Amino acid sequence: MKVKSGSRGDEIVAAAGRIFREKGYHATSVRDIAESVGLLKGSLYHYIRSKEELLARLFDGLLEDTVRELEAIVTRDASPDARLGAMVRAYAASVMANHDAVGLYLRESRSLPAAELAKLGARRRRMRGLFTAVIADGVRAGMFAVGDAKIAALAILGGCNWLYEWYRPGGRLSSDAIADELAERAVRSVRA
Amino acid sequence: MKVKSGSRGDEIVAAAGRIFREKGYHATSVRDIAESVGLLKGSLYHYIRSKEELLARLFDGLLEDTVRELEAIVTRDASPDARLGAMVRAYAASVMANHDAVGLYLRESRSLPAAELAKLGARRRRMRGLFTAVIADGVRAGMFAVGDAKIAALAILGGCNWLYEWYRPGGRLSSDAIADELAERAVRSVRA
Repeated sequence: MKVKSGSRGDEIVAAAGRIFREKGYHATSVRDIAESVGLLKGSLYHYIRSKEELLARLFDGLLEDTVRELEAIVTRDASPDARLGAMVRAYAASVMANHDAVGLYLRESRSLPAAELAKLGARRRRMRGLFTAVIADGVRAGMFAVGDAKIAALAILGGCNWLYEWYRPGGRLSSDAIADELAERAVRSVRA
Repeated sequence: MKVKSGSRGDEIVAAAGRIFREKGYHATSVRDIAESVGLLKGSLYHYIRSKEELLARLFDGLLEDTVRELEAIVTRDASPDARLGAMVRAYAASVMANHDAVGLYLRESRSLPAAELAKLGARRRRMRGLFTAVIADGVRAGMFAVGDAKIAALAILGGCNWLYEWYRPGGRLSSDAIADELAERAVRSVRA
């Protein structure tokens, strides 16, 4: 990864995210990104190797942090419904805080290099496994009742992922209120 | 819409759907589609005007049928939970039966002409409104309890839409079993 950390690299990545979201990844040129940060196209290549690299950089840290947060919640000494609720709140908050990047990833994953896609796929499977495990914990404890823990987990993750389509910052409800509502619906969806 | 109905036009639309899904819309050329149905590129233009038209044609009927089916369920003389369960089963079944087209629409909507996008946006708002209305019916009847009926509806729709990412025909569970599980989870998510 050639993108340099520090303010200039971060600024370029953030600008790329905004422009990818507005114009679409394919319609965005490296020149568009360079102009938005006041650089010539040739100078931008001092910071980045390619448009693909910017796309990869945009969501890379995002899912790693979320996986770590969910892993910490799963191992808490708390009831399955408290843990599931906290996981949904954390996951929904992450999707909302990064809804441009999540939307880009879900729409443009085909444009990512295979190695990035493989890493991301592994993180997504890990998160799905964590949700499924907590639901299975609840079933064993007699607190949850589901026909299929994997489908129940996918329904909950889908309900959160869909935020990328409808969530708008500054809308009718705060992101905290939305996360709380999604968590309450998710816990009830599996409760015995 | 220049795409002619009948077997040849339908065959071209189906072939385009398969190839768009496999290669991605942007990476697919009109020549790819022509070759897959044994036509020269020039001959294909007898049937279609553009790649965009094929994309539009692929999902156009799909959402119209689903809206009609949901409208019929909403007006049934049945309890809110029976109606919501039937709506989720119908919607999930539609997403699974057409998961290539739904996936293409959710990923490639930016490539659609503005008029098509506007029509589709109206159908999606209509479906969201139908789900919200049935949930609100259930709240009034004291059968459901939610903090926000719109968010509850979006969580349910998102759980179904997410099928486009994970559903594979011939997988571990039948599409009927998946639809039943999603319906049960959805109804429980809002039940008082």
